[in-house]
Amino acid sequence: MSSNPTIAAGPSFSDDKRITELRAIAGEIDDIRSALRLLSWDQNTSMPEGAGATRGEQMATLQGLIHDRWTAQRLGELLSELATPIQKAPFTDADRALLRETRRERDYAAKLPRGLVEEMARVEALSFEAWHKARTNNDFASFAPWLARTITLQREVADRLGFKATRYDALLDLYEPGLTSERVDALFTPVREVSVKLRKRIEQSGHEVDASCLSGSFPAERQMQLARDILTRMGYDFSRGGLSISPHPFTTEFGSPFDVRVTVHPHEDMVDDALMAALHEGGHALYEQGSDAALARTPVVGGVSMGAHESQSRLWENAIGRSEAFWRGNLSVVQAIFPTEFAQVDAATFSRALNKVTPGLIRIAADEVTYNLHIIIRYEMEQAMVNTSVAVESLPRLWNEKYQAYLGITPPTDSEGILQDVHWTSGFGYFPTYTLGNLYGAQIYTAMRASVADFDERLASGDCAFALDWLRERMYRWGKTYLPEDLVERVTGQRPDPSYFVEYLTRKFEQVYDLPTEAASR
Amino acid sequence: MSSNPTIAAGPSFSDDKRITELRAIAGEIDDIRSALRLLSWDQNTSMPEGAGATRGEQMATLQGLIHDRWTAQRLGELLSELATPIQKAPFTDADRALLRETRRERDYAAKLPRGLVEEMARVEALSFEAWHKARTNNDFASFAPWLARTITLQREVADRLGFKATRYDALLDLYEPGLTSERVDALFTPVREVSVKLRKRIEQSGHEVDASCLSGSFPAERQMQLARDILTRMGYDFSRGGLSISPHPFTTEFGSPFDVRVTVHPHEDMVDDALMAALHEGGHALYEQGSDAALARTPVVGGVSMGAHESQSRLWENAIGRSEAFWRGNLSVVQAIFPTEFAQVDAATFSRALNKVTPGLIRIAADEVTYNLHIIIRYEMEQAMVNTSVAVESLPRLWNEKYQAYLGITPPTDSEGILQDVHWTSGFGYFPTYTLGNLYGAQIYTAMRASVADFDERLASGDCAFALDWLRERMYRWGKTYLPEDLVERVTGQRPDPSYFVEYLTRKFEQVYDLPTEAASR
Repeated sequence: MSSNPTIAAGPSFSDDKRITELRAIAGEIDDIRSALRLLSWDQNTSMPEGAGATRGEQMATLQGLIHDRWTAQRLGELLSELATPIQKAPFTDADRALLRETRRERDYAAKLPRGLVEEMARVEALSFEAWHKARTNNDFASFAPWLARTITLQREVADRLGFKATRYDALLDLYEPGLTSERVDALFTPVREVSVKLRKRIEQSGHEVDASCLSGSFPAERQMQLARDILTRMGYDFSRGGLSISPHPFTTEFGSPFDVRVTVHPHEDMVDDALMAALHEGGHALYEQGSDAALARTPVVGGVSMGAHESQSRLWENAIGRSEAFWRGNLSVVQAIFPTEFAQVDAATFSRALNKVTPGLIRIAADEVTYNLHIIIRYEMEQAMVNTSVAVESLPRLWNEKYQAYLGITPPTDSEGILQDVHWTSGFGYFPTYTLGNLYGAQIYTAMRASVADFDERLASGDCAFALDWLRERMYRWGKTYLPEDLVERVTGQRPDPSYFVEYLTRKFEQVYDLPTEAASR
Repeated sequence: MSSNPTIAAGPSFSDDKRITELRAIAGEIDDIRSALRLLSWDQNTSMPEGAGATRGEQMATLQGLIHDRWTAQRLGELLSELATPIQKAPFTDADRALLRETRRERDYAAKLPRGLVEEMARVEALSFEAWHKARTNNDFASFAPWLARTITLQREVADRLGFKATRYDALLDLYEPGLTSERVDALFTPVREVSVKLRKRIEQSGHEVDASCLSGSFPAERQMQLARDILTRMGYDFSRGGLSISPHPFTTEFGSPFDVRVTVHPHEDMVDDALMAALHEGGHALYEQGSDAALARTPVVGGVSMGAHESQSRLWENAIGRSEAFWRGNLSVVQAIFPTEFAQVDAATFSRALNKVTPGLIRIAADEVTYNLHIIIRYEMEQAMVNTSVAVESLPRLWNEKYQAYLGITPPTDSEGILQDVHWTSGFGYFPTYTLGNLYGAQIYTAMRASVADFDERLASGDCAFALDWLRERMYRWGKTYLPEDLVERVTGQRPDPSYFVEYLTRKFEQVYDLPTEAASR
């Protein structure tokens, strides 16, 4: 007897023997992928610097093994045999998703020769080492040759995958199936407009937010304890996860939903950086940990797209994690670890401080109003790198010019500029999914608030479980069973629509900055 | 121009195209093995408890991939083609070792079906989880079924590998090529005799060693710093290594000589446990880091046998790391981290304390006089498990009876008894190599002292580089180029001979306990 009879049964695979065989093949691939991710996670958290070249070989070998398996003849036969019958009973939605994701992986592998895949893995490992050193030493010139190799490889990938309009579209599709530059441009227009408009309204109001409580001296070890405690409050399961330090925060999994880990990077002069990274990466991790165990060791487990993934990291980080209600329920966690610093700070002050709008240099530290401008800059840079023959040496200047144009500031060093993100050690096309995530996230958050009575009161009681349950039930446990836009519709009752984000951002910052209410441009 | 023209050229492979192909195949296998070791290392250091079953699947899959490659037809053809020509020029000693090690791996894989290898990997991962919990909860019963499964699997391995006298011989051979119970018995006899004799002489002398300086309150974090500093003093290269905490100290590599890491386990009530583990694991790691880079990504890289490996861990831990000369040069490192505790302690006192003979329960904390008795107990237990049908439930009693008989003490809990070592989560046959390592180590140490003028004075100056260079030049850089007994002869000028250990132990403890000199039983 279910304690909640209205909850639908979760995803499940049929016991058709071809599905069983497909799962066995996919399971082996998933195991190798988990090992590959561990090689990468270790490189980010523990690996000694002298091991970069060796690690590159190891990752290339595992990439090659995965490639061989996706392109194997028997897998092709299974996909053909199942193509027609899969649409009907006894096949399930999970079966259909398994077939769809397998076909997608196989198509990708078939188009990219094993040698290219291995070369990409090798270059990524070495490029990561070069980037890490270059960022430490503020030395873009030493990273430039690696970025040039990545550009060359990514162009080759795009050419082999094929595209209608621009090479860059082929790369976008890798992270968000079907996404094109044309669609990104359409989505980014209202986002850019509302960002610029809100920034101006805030500047013109003359209102200031006092964020001084966030600065001071915060030992890294205590910040890690804070990150751990907040993750626990969110409902992150440490018995199936872990928290480490890496140069750039990230979430990774070695077999979802059973092993999903996060990293942060504390800076000792500010309390909010690692804290908000914990909420952000925690959102990703809750999504992965929330997959139904029936989907484990298949390509259907885990987040359905990068956009869907970012919707959850941004929802937990921003919509929940910067709200006054959340801090009414959780500021005591901060006060327990930094009692002197926060004894006199209340939830309203803390929340307002976390929402201060300051055009800054660092994407992951950006406020919600300017965040998407950081993404737009990267999006435009990526288009230039992939679609045009821009010289690598000119990229730092291009970066700095764009920061001046969009945010009114110029990075004093490349470490705070073009070298800040790890992403370009592996490829292009990921960044736009952050903004897509903001759009999906706002729509899902709006739906959740509308369906949960006393949302703010429950959050303010220190309870996050009700929100996690809501999201798990409707979204997380399904993994990749449904395509991203279909999933958003299942969760919210509507196709993805950027106006939810415009409305969310406008109402939120009118409140934070005490602005007169305006009709949002929906 | 070499700065030292007397140093022979290091190992190198010929450019015969069959050797190149063999190295390519072996390189791929080495990459998968490194990934497999990382899965295991992560399980020991970072993996969440909920991921045990998933990790078991991943390890089984990678074991299966390795198995397929060792048994592939093309590899068999290459080995056949090279069998005769390999003995002459232009083939090198490294080529011959490559062929020998490849053949050894292939034979092993050919005799063990893939299903068995995968099952062993799966059981090992789950058994490790069970052991870790059982040790924490002092609950042997919960580990017993896993130990029973390991016994069954190890018997099957022995039966498939084949043996002349006893099943256990087949397992010994895995860790030390050619080793048999008969040979172990012969080697253990003088070891047991000198251990028992020395213990009696020490007891009868009535002399006491004051080891009180080693007990107190030593925060784990500062112990980790001490371990790090001592590893640095030994010449361990952190740019190709790393130090972590795990339940049981160990050394592992993910592509020697470029990534060789150690773990320790600090206990806050004693300073010497993690410290001596750092010296022990550091010895293993120096051996791995010392392999010539030309051997990387081949089965010839790294220590040639477990006995050879233990010879180096024991040489660094005991012969060097417990000597007064070493602490004259390095006690300042301890004093810098624990100034209050060690301000009044001198090197002679510290060294004597580290050599106190106390029959204890824990193998890795045992003194040199009683250490081998711990090994003999395990050796006899393993023979019982593999060669006879002893009931798993009776093993804790058998363990405790043997401790009473050999060491005069009975473990109050199984956590301090039969559950103390991780080894039986994977198999049997490893333990005797510890004592073999003590024998090789004493012989190598004796040769080194004889060939280096002012050995103690140089050690007392804080210099370990001269000893590391001596060992690297003669032993480490050759990897598995020469078989263990041949290697010992190349290093020392003589075949392995247990009398060096007997002499070393006798002279050392006559000095520590101020005993009258007796002729050692050489």
